[in-house]
Amino acid sequence: MSAWVLPDHIADVLPSEARHIEELRRGLLDTARSYGYELVMPPLLEHLDSLLSGAGEALDLLTFKLVDQLSGRSLGLRADTTQQVARIDAHLLNRRGVTRLCYCGPVLHTRPDRPHATREPLQFGAEIYGHAGVEADIESVLLALQCLRIAQVPQLSVDLADVRIVRSLLAGVPVGLAHLNQVHAALAAKDASELARLTRDFPAPSREGLLALLQLYGDEKVLDEAKKVLRPASALDQALSDLRAIASRVDGARVTFDLADLRGYAYYSGARFAVYTPGASDALVRGGRYDEVGAAFGRNRPAAGFSLDVKQLVSVVSPRPLKAAIRAPWAVDAGAAAAIAALRRQGETVVCMLSGHGSEVDEFCCDRELVRDGDQWHVRAL
Amino acid sequence: MSAWVLPDHIADVLPSEARHIEELRRGLLDTARSYGYELVMPPLLEHLDSLLSGAGEALDLLTFKLVDQLSGRSLGLRADTTQQVARIDAHLLNRRGVTRLCYCGPVLHTRPDRPHATREPLQFGAEIYGHAGVEADIESVLLALQCLRIAQVPQLSVDLADVRIVRSLLAGVPVGLAHLNQVHAALAAKDASELARLTRDFPAPSREGLLALLQLYGDEKVLDEAKKVLRPASALDQALSDLRAIASRVDGARVTFDLADLRGYAYYSGARFAVYTPGASDALVRGGRYDEVGAAFGRNRPAAGFSLDVKQLVSVVSPRPLKAAIRAPWAVDAGAAAAIAALRRQGETVVCMLSGHGSEVDEFCCDRELVRDGDQWHVRAL
Repeated sequence: MSAWVLPDHIADVLPSEARHIEELRRGLLDTARSYGYELVMPPLLEHLDSLLSGAGEALDLLTFKLVDQLSGRSLGLRADTTQQVARIDAHLLNRRGVTRLCYCGPVLHTRPDRPHATREPLQFGAEIYGHAGVEADIESVLLALQCLRIAQVPQLSVDLADVRIVRSLLAGVPVGLAHLNQVHAALAAKDASELARLTRDFPAPSREGLLALLQLYGDEKVLDEAKKVLRPASALDQALSDLRAIASRVDGARVTFDLADLRGYAYYSGARFAVYTPGASDALVRGGRYDEVGAAFGRNRPAAGFSLDVKQLVSVVSPRPLKAAIRAPWAVDAGAAAAIAALRRQGETVVCMLSGHGSEVDEFCCDRELVRDGDQWHVRAL
Repeated sequence: MSAWVLPDHIADVLPSEARHIEELRRGLLDTARSYGYELVMPPLLEHLDSLLSGAGEALDLLTFKLVDQLSGRSLGLRADTTQQVARIDAHLLNRRGVTRLCYCGPVLHTRPDRPHATREPLQFGAEIYGHAGVEADIESVLLALQCLRIAQVPQLSVDLADVRIVRSLLAGVPVGLAHLNQVHAALAAKDASELARLTRDFPAPSREGLLALLQLYGDEKVLDEAKKVLRPASALDQALSDLRAIASRVDGARVTFDLADLRGYAYYSGARFAVYTPGASDALVRGGRYDEVGAAFGRNRPAAGFSLDVKQLVSVVSPRPLKAAIRAPWAVDAGAAAAIAALRRQGETVVCMLSGHGSEVDEFCCDRELVRDGDQWHVRAL
């Protein structure tokens, strides 16, 4: 194997794509900032038990582990940033009120988390802590949509779900964890015969409700239908009214509901959302409410937020045009050096040509050049 | 141990520092871009043999290793980005002429590479491939200085060295690798008695030259003195003339020379530089020429460049003032929502207050608020 072959699902990002990712990254962080979200940078490497607190088996299996030679303890490379930001909210900032935090950095996965995915996503996310009301859910959805608009993603559609619906149907039903996972899998796969088999010993209202969920996807009528066919419960009512409130504030994107949807990490506790665009095989953004996420750090605050992979985003939007650049001779005199410095201060890219290599600039489209005219240096079109 | 204790020499970056790092990061990348350097993003994780090709034992010991469950092969987390960028130059871009590349991303170290250093530096660097002349060295030094000026680092001083000087003195001397490392260590420590002991069997011109090097540090007079006292050799002459050419183009920074200096990774092959500021215990920037760096990837191109740790940089410059923000009520009507969206489009930060949490904004200095006046919304000073 040659020294330059990379591991599977790991790739270099070359100049034109890297430039686009950097532009998107800045647009996303600036958008979050304009909503009052403060940037944090949690570390790539943490003690494994801290990184995986309450996160469930799926994240555990995605996490690379290694040993810290300084302490002998197990470390993990973060596979998701949400737990880390919850830790920061819980222990370092320790504020009493609402805290809004955002982040953008790489995460690493032991294997791709969907077909053809990279094992090194660039995860951007924004989270709001300390507010239990649906306003925080709404802000989270609206900010996610605004981020995708800033990235120029076309034809957005939002899919809404709520984990409290399935939980309210299972309330009081004695069921083991393994069995529960099978029920969740059957719901996710919309597999009615498997679900019927798994729930045959459940009380009738639970069984019928779970089976009814398989049909409860589509537009807002789903919420009315759910109210009719599902076993009444206060958690269910709250979930349906929150979903309605969120949907009412979404503007310029199609809204659908899928009340059986349970995908994603184990930490969700309420409304959940995913944003899609035609041409992307998977959701671009996943988010929702995860009130229990800080519990492992001793601070069980209300929390809502979302994350996305900037590398996935860049694959679904059109490349941006190159900015023009100026070609200049290698600056041998002070006049040329001063002219070049002044152009760069104005934000121009000035590429100095080294002897024998006058014509090889790929990423910069040189449409002008710096030329001497007597004692003066001028920019002229090429 | 609590779930929120981080490993030694690993830390969260909290909002005010994160904001500063992000601003520096953008300033550095924009400066490199204005010189025609194209951004690349090599992966955090690579096959170990590729990551360590020709890099020497020091980098090997700094590199975290793990096993790829997809392939069973050994992977390394990058501890330095230079090798990766050489790989990109060698095999992916494969251009004939000059290629300028820059990068900014985290690297991980198994242990701090100097006292109190982080194990997760944010490495920024810029490299120029394909030009063997001193112009590439000069551009590299000038770009490094410009980057530090953009970061507002005060009182810069540049220390110049060249590995060809020690090599020319050792040319033809039969000496084993372990013994050679001891000679290098004695030179670095300026330990004359140890150096005398280690070189007592060397030919007189080599021994005397190496011992003379210990005194050859200071201002430009050092270059004239070296010419007088060191054994004549064409590599020596070339090194001294390159150092003089580089020094002549440095403007606005003090220049010193240390001809015995050999620090840094094994890949340097010519002129080297380090940039210091008062108050930083170690160099902020290290760079130089490393023509052999691409050899492991089948393309032994001339190369020069530098790197720095943005986290170290942020610790030596003054914090930047907060940008002002606007406090707004939770937008319940369309008029308020439109007013908030318009302000955000203008680049303002608008923080919506959620019920019961009106006053807790740490990172954003709210100096104005959005208030209703009849049907209209206005911004007024607080």
